[in-house]
Amino acid sequence: MHRVRRKMGRFEELIPLEEAFRRMDSVDWKQPVTETLPPQEAHGRIVSEDTMALGNIPEWNRSLVDGFAVLSDDCAAASETNPAVLAINGVIEAGSSSFSRYTSGQCTEIYTGGLIPEPYDSVIMVEDVEVGGGKISVFARPRKWENVQKAGDDIASGSVILQKSGLVRPWHVSAMTGSGTDQVRVFRKLRIGVIATGNELFPGSEGYIPNTTQELLVSYLNRPFLDARAAGVAHDSREEIAEMIEAALEKYDCLVVTGGTSLGGRDEVPESMEKLGTPVFAGSMIRPGRTLTLYRSSGKPVFSVSGIPIPSLLSFDLFFEHFLKRLLGFSQYRRTVWGKLSQPVSNKAGYAGIYRVRVRGGPDGTQVDPVKSHGTGTLGSILNADGTMLIPGTAEGFEQGELVPVKLFGDYI
Amino acid sequence: MHRVRRKMGRFEELIPLEEAFRRMDSVDWKQPVTETLPPQEAHGRIVSEDTMALGNIPEWNRSLVDGFAVLSDDCAAASETNPAVLAINGVIEAGSSSFSRYTSGQCTEIYTGGLIPEPYDSVIMVEDVEVGGGKISVFARPRKWENVQKAGDDIASGSVILQKSGLVRPWHVSAMTGSGTDQVRVFRKLRIGVIATGNELFPGSEGYIPNTTQELLVSYLNRPFLDARAAGVAHDSREEIAEMIEAALEKYDCLVVTGGTSLGGRDEVPESMEKLGTPVFAGSMIRPGRTLTLYRSSGKPVFSVSGIPIPSLLSFDLFFEHFLKRLLGFSQYRRTVWGKLSQPVSNKAGYAGIYRVRVRGGPDGTQVDPVKSHGTGTLGSILNADGTMLIPGTAEGFEQGELVPVKLFGDYI
Repeated sequence: MHRVRRKMGRFEELIPLEEAFRRMDSVDWKQPVTETLPPQEAHGRIVSEDTMALGNIPEWNRSLVDGFAVLSDDCAAASETNPAVLAINGVIEAGSSSFSRYTSGQCTEIYTGGLIPEPYDSVIMVEDVEVGGGKISVFARPRKWENVQKAGDDIASGSVILQKSGLVRPWHVSAMTGSGTDQVRVFRKLRIGVIATGNELFPGSEGYIPNTTQELLVSYLNRPFLDARAAGVAHDSREEIAEMIEAALEKYDCLVVTGGTSLGGRDEVPESMEKLGTPVFAGSMIRPGRTLTLYRSSGKPVFSVSGIPIPSLLSFDLFFEHFLKRLLGFSQYRRTVWGKLSQPVSNKAGYAGIYRVRVRGGPDGTQVDPVKSHGTGTLGSILNADGTMLIPGTAEGFEQGELVPVKLFGDYI
Repeated sequence: MHRVRRKMGRFEELIPLEEAFRRMDSVDWKQPVTETLPPQEAHGRIVSEDTMALGNIPEWNRSLVDGFAVLSDDCAAASETNPAVLAINGVIEAGSSSFSRYTSGQCTEIYTGGLIPEPYDSVIMVEDVEVGGGKISVFARPRKWENVQKAGDDIASGSVILQKSGLVRPWHVSAMTGSGTDQVRVFRKLRIGVIATGNELFPGSEGYIPNTTQELLVSYLNRPFLDARAAGVAHDSREEIAEMIEAALEKYDCLVVTGGTSLGGRDEVPESMEKLGTPVFAGSMIRPGRTLTLYRSSGKPVFSVSGIPIPSLLSFDLFFEHFLKRLLGFSQYRRTVWGKLSQPVSNKAGYAGIYRVRVRGGPDGTQVDPVKSHGTGTLGSILNADGTMLIPGTAEGFEQGELVPVKLFGDYI
């Protein structure tokens, strides 16, 4: 009698979020592809193995101060009353060097960063000597390696520059380049195709709606280690959707399909997936996004999400972050900060709730302000949000003053 | 007598950081250029004016549930014992609509997100009616606008989507597109040229050093609202440097010149700038980076920084962040979080100190771990850092357990 009820049947037995994660983890996903790049091109990528320094940084001993490079033994007897006097045999500016000029009783003027030639083993600061007539007077025996940064002291040959699954930042590139590491093994950019479905997305259609969800997902996924693209817009036709998904599976490592997920009275995506893949889970107890369904197709994930912008984004992102951890070991997708909740937030029993929040910092610590939202599809409530807070399905809510984790949105996402 | 001392003279009277900021603020910098873009292309840019919604989101009244759109007056007398019976005249799926079909005593089946046609003013949830024989029975009078998201309820026409100087994120694009805002005024990408100086940077030179500083700065400045590029490598020649700077001033809005800043015994950059610009300040009491010198040239900033990678990056970034705030009003360059310091950190009296830190979060709040560094140029100490902590020159240090602000490095920088 209740036609609508029947339609919702597919989602009547929702599993908890943790069970959905477990199922995702247990799937034998297609292994990610890796590639070898010069360090400069690896900026923003995820390394697929521990990356080592091939050589030392600095490569040679370097001066930490402006002063005079000496052999400490030449000043062995130096004292206030009986200074050692050394002839200045030249000058070493940053980067340049004057190897093999030394003869006993000589020193070389040197500047911060200058390479210290053999056999010098110490640099005396300019403030600690008297200079005149091409000579310096030294009033105390310097310690061996005083004011010297020894070769490999910054980064030693063979040490780990970046651990497996870490993100390559500019200083990692410098450390690789500087230590002679000219190749780095990284994961290929994960290729994500976003397919939108819905008759209403075609200009001129009755009740035309701009295709904001696809655009939102693609631009949100614009990260240096991902390659996300719009992979087509399909009508509400099982055949058209199936064809588009099948073609996209050839090109992409991961698919997201928006709309046609049955709560809106249409069921085209599940129907079109019948022959293309096997469901990992069909919906879960999260809000928003309980209809999010994950399929495995040729070893690749196909996420079927709502067609409404914010619910589809927030729910997809929750699972996608977990997927990146599972597939690449990558744990820096969204940064977590902890702060005190400024107001209580109640949560629907059994459902893991994704709440938009603002984060304020100050000398009293970090404050987390929940952002009010009415309705599931509201854009207004995300415009000023800094990130999201997840309340587990086992919790009825979070109390005021409670210390809660917030997953920040990217700085420039 | 002390040749080295004389060379350092230019930096003997260093000003405090706050004074350096004040001088930067008081300069009449060239006004930034703005441009008008479609919202999609504005993603990652900084808006140069408040950006308003041209229309409502949603554009029409929409259903928040699956159920039946009704005119509440048609159910005025409905009760448990005397239900109102309405004929179902059609169905409205998400996005589609069936305007002007209604005649008195009718209802329309509707799904979440469906546009509600005139004159309906309420949606009754499917769970609350009995359906059969093409009719529904309604057992209570619905409230007017029950389960209806009214036009403009998410984002109202004329409301602010993004305030001046805010960063355009994917949801701002959706809000603009969805509300009919098809043009947005943003700052043109700030064009930053990085010039490296030093004989040692030329392959084959004595004491050759890879040009890591220029590369580090350019890749660090890779942000969607900036356009940073390498603008040449010059020998330690006053004329060559001056020529390169002059040419770059034609192309860029802001210049950074690495090396040749006199503590290394060379003074070519200050000499080459003599005819090209006026100093805003020459060095300041910060560590690392006390030699950082700012010039104004044709209304544009020219930053002369150390040639050593990490000191040049950290000191430049401190001033550049302030410059972005001053010029564009932009305050989201680096995100600040607060946490408890796990160990005391002592600071050199009078100097604002930039310290690399790690940030750990957990149910005990956010912990800040200082990263040990030896020597100023150490790359090793930044490889695992999450951001920096600034200790003001007025403070001798921060105590263990003190709540301190940390400026995070970008997520994917």
